[in-house]
Amino acid sequence: MEKRNLSLLTDFYELTMANGFFLDGRENEIAVFDVFFRRVPDDGGYAILAGLESIIDYIENLKFTAEEIEFLRSKKIFSEGFLNYLANFKFTSDVFAIEEGTPIFPNEPIFVIKGPIIECQLIETMVLLSYNHQSLIATKASRIVREAKGRAVLEFGARRAHSYDAAIIGARSAYIGGVIGTSNTISDMYYGIPALGTMAHSYVQSFDSEYEAFKSYALNYPDNTVLLVDTYDTLNQGVPNAIKVHNEVLVPMGKKLKGIRIDSGDLAYLSKKVREMLDNAGLTETTITVSNSLDEYLIRDLIVHQDAKIDTFGVGERLITARSEAVFGGVYKLSAIERNGILVPRIKISDNVAKTTIPGFKQVYRFYDENNMAIADVITLFDEVIDESKPYMLFDPNAPWKEKLVSNFKAVPLLTKIFDNGKLIYKKPSLKEIRAKKEQLFGTLWKEVIRLQNPHEYYVDLSKPLWDLRQEMITKHRSR
Amino acid sequence: MEKRNLSLLTDFYELTMANGFFLDGRENEIAVFDVFFRRVPDDGGYAILAGLESIIDYIENLKFTAEEIEFLRSKKIFSEGFLNYLANFKFTSDVFAIEEGTPIFPNEPIFVIKGPIIECQLIETMVLLSYNHQSLIATKASRIVREAKGRAVLEFGARRAHSYDAAIIGARSAYIGGVIGTSNTISDMYYGIPALGTMAHSYVQSFDSEYEAFKSYALNYPDNTVLLVDTYDTLNQGVPNAIKVHNEVLVPMGKKLKGIRIDSGDLAYLSKKVREMLDNAGLTETTITVSNSLDEYLIRDLIVHQDAKIDTFGVGERLITARSEAVFGGVYKLSAIERNGILVPRIKISDNVAKTTIPGFKQVYRFYDENNMAIADVITLFDEVIDESKPYMLFDPNAPWKEKLVSNFKAVPLLTKIFDNGKLIYKKPSLKEIRAKKEQLFGTLWKEVIRLQNPHEYYVDLSKPLWDLRQEMITKHRSR
Repeated sequence: MEKRNLSLLTDFYELTMANGFFLDGRENEIAVFDVFFRRVPDDGGYAILAGLESIIDYIENLKFTAEEIEFLRSKKIFSEGFLNYLANFKFTSDVFAIEEGTPIFPNEPIFVIKGPIIECQLIETMVLLSYNHQSLIATKASRIVREAKGRAVLEFGARRAHSYDAAIIGARSAYIGGVIGTSNTISDMYYGIPALGTMAHSYVQSFDSEYEAFKSYALNYPDNTVLLVDTYDTLNQGVPNAIKVHNEVLVPMGKKLKGIRIDSGDLAYLSKKVREMLDNAGLTETTITVSNSLDEYLIRDLIVHQDAKIDTFGVGERLITARSEAVFGGVYKLSAIERNGILVPRIKISDNVAKTTIPGFKQVYRFYDENNMAIADVITLFDEVIDESKPYMLFDPNAPWKEKLVSNFKAVPLLTKIFDNGKLIYKKPSLKEIRAKKEQLFGTLWKEVIRLQNPHEYYVDLSKPLWDLRQEMITKHRSR
Repeated sequence: MEKRNLSLLTDFYELTMANGFFLDGRENEIAVFDVFFRRVPDDGGYAILAGLESIIDYIENLKFTAEEIEFLRSKKIFSEGFLNYLANFKFTSDVFAIEEGTPIFPNEPIFVIKGPIIECQLIETMVLLSYNHQSLIATKASRIVREAKGRAVLEFGARRAHSYDAAIIGARSAYIGGVIGTSNTISDMYYGIPALGTMAHSYVQSFDSEYEAFKSYALNYPDNTVLLVDTYDTLNQGVPNAIKVHNEVLVPMGKKLKGIRIDSGDLAYLSKKVREMLDNAGLTETTITVSNSLDEYLIRDLIVHQDAKIDTFGVGERLITARSEAVFGGVYKLSAIERNGILVPRIKISDNVAKTTIPGFKQVYRFYDENNMAIADVITLFDEVIDESKPYMLFDPNAPWKEKLVSNFKAVPLLTKIFDNGKLIYKKPSLKEIRAKKEQLFGTLWKEVIRLQNPHEYYVDLSKPLWDLRQEMITKHRSR
């Protein structure tokens, strides 16, 4: 889908480091890097992963054109050998990733790249950028959709997105998160996400009366007449005009008023009044859509506390920019490097225990109980085998005396091999499949984990061998 | 620069409305639309306009391909006449805009389009999207740069941007706002914004010791040795190793350690200690760069209250996402429509006085006093003439009894004609010119207007004729 060449969308230091590795003759040294994040935005209990498809497309198309090489040469700091390496660049690494639509949790590896260190560095920026943005929006969308409690949520944010991709790809991420449609036409064309929308205030204003505007729209779209009723006065003009158009224009055509939209004012009060007016006019099936700076908190309040009569929420700027917290903080850290043909784990120690990295080449297993509910994720060394036929001891890595023996569990590995020696071996699922996967996996999370406020912290544990390795490395480091 | 075809990056309702206008035979009805915003993000006193170049590129390339037409046809709601209109689409409108880099204020028109209503609607989404995102980032950057009080600010946010454009175009916007460079290589290639950066923690970790990593870097980049000193222990290892590499590697080559970077820990404390250590080693010219979730408030505190010894700030996620307030709320409103060959003003009345629109086809003048300081913007009817040789009465449109007679002023029109009957007549300035314009115009703002907290509200007034028109329309509307 991505046709631009974004190979120089990379932090300049990736190139200076890569050139350094090349000059030092280390370009083929095998390294392992992990992508993970430390905190869920908005203090949420989970995130929804998105961005893998973009990363696959990017890696598959990664090449450096003559023009780009020339640009780099003009910087006068890159060796000809390195520029030549770039000109003949071929991606040869192994890549493992958690699939899109999967709920993910802090500190677990969601993307692992194992290959020549120079390749690992060159793709860092694009990998992070793709995951961070797309997971941010998918997560925000899933929060909003959850609070709508089965009512439809539409993504309406293109005009406030952070440029074009954010509108286009953002709609895709929001769809993974659970919205049912978008205002953005191009995202329908690219991804098949239903594009929806009928009229703006300007349409109503461009006529000499609201009634004429509604009549025109009904005549032109008798099967999809959704009228914006708040241009002048929702209760005294807008809804009466909509009902009049239903009776005078649509009924004679054998049609019905499909819906009305309210974009301003007190949505709780207005929706209840409008519902009453529509019902009294026999328009019990006419839907009510509302929009206007909505987010998960406002939607929850409308539904839970105000008994608003709303069928569909149009959510714009606060979804497409994740306004409440617009940063998803995925990082990309070295976890192992080859020495004499053996992968040697690396750790970055921090005064802050939580910021100390988890060393080594790893896998993540999600444990499900007999009711198929997710009980914990366990990060293991890559080759560890988990025997489902025996009880398994889970323990909190920060408080290892807090143990829990589990039996009758299923342990599903989350990291799937995507590229094998640079070759794509993963069959990209369709967007509908990704969305369905998200629905299914989201259903395996306890309500306590997904609630908006003070969610229960989902367990992300370390296996005993991995915990031992980490402790040993911390101890060794301290004793230096 | 923009090579993608983004013509369907438009809200679906633009297309349903356009099809409606077409079916009603109104596609050539001339309308006037204004873009304006109501509130500066972060409760600031000004915004910096950016996005015009993208809009020009978009409009110049606006066409609907056969594939797009086919996609729209598949929706089964668009008339063949309309699809044929799109297939032969030619932009014929007049476009007026305030130039990039100009400080702008709430409620004034920053973009005016006058042309067939169908064209006005089709471009709405892209116009808003471009202005909203780019002005958001330019404004945020200018706030951060101001608080750095002459120290360099670098844009380091690509990995947390809201997808690819947000990183690429975001760097351009940040440059307009005043940063001196970016981490994003592609923005250097596209726009000539210096791309900067040297190494990540992974580089240091990939060696068996920090000293070896620094030595390698110094040997490979003797003219640009900037070392990241916080991988293990800034004061006890990082800086001593950097000084050692200076003495043992760089000095013998006749070179000097250019700088060090600190990316974690207490930046105020560390920068002072590091400055002392470097100075004691004779490295008085070695610069100190810091990064790590910085923004204008943290930078101000470091400089004003903590006497931090910092030469350069690398600012990432909080700039590129405008995290403190990630939405710029530009809107696109109908202000006039032709009836019988005459432009008839349109107004949208709101219960909230501030949300009532300003009707008519308009111009904006910026008034400067004899010291070339900006004193007010005055929105006028488009053809009004302001006679600089006579005193001019300014008044507050919300409190018209608050008057101020000004003399010896210059009144500069801000809206420049960009497209004339669809033809581009504006010479696009270079990015450097835009940045210089921002610097110059920013200097005409009173300190009271640009301060971070509780800024003085810059005057955006209406001319008497425009105020009279608006009052008359409000009165007429109320009497209905």
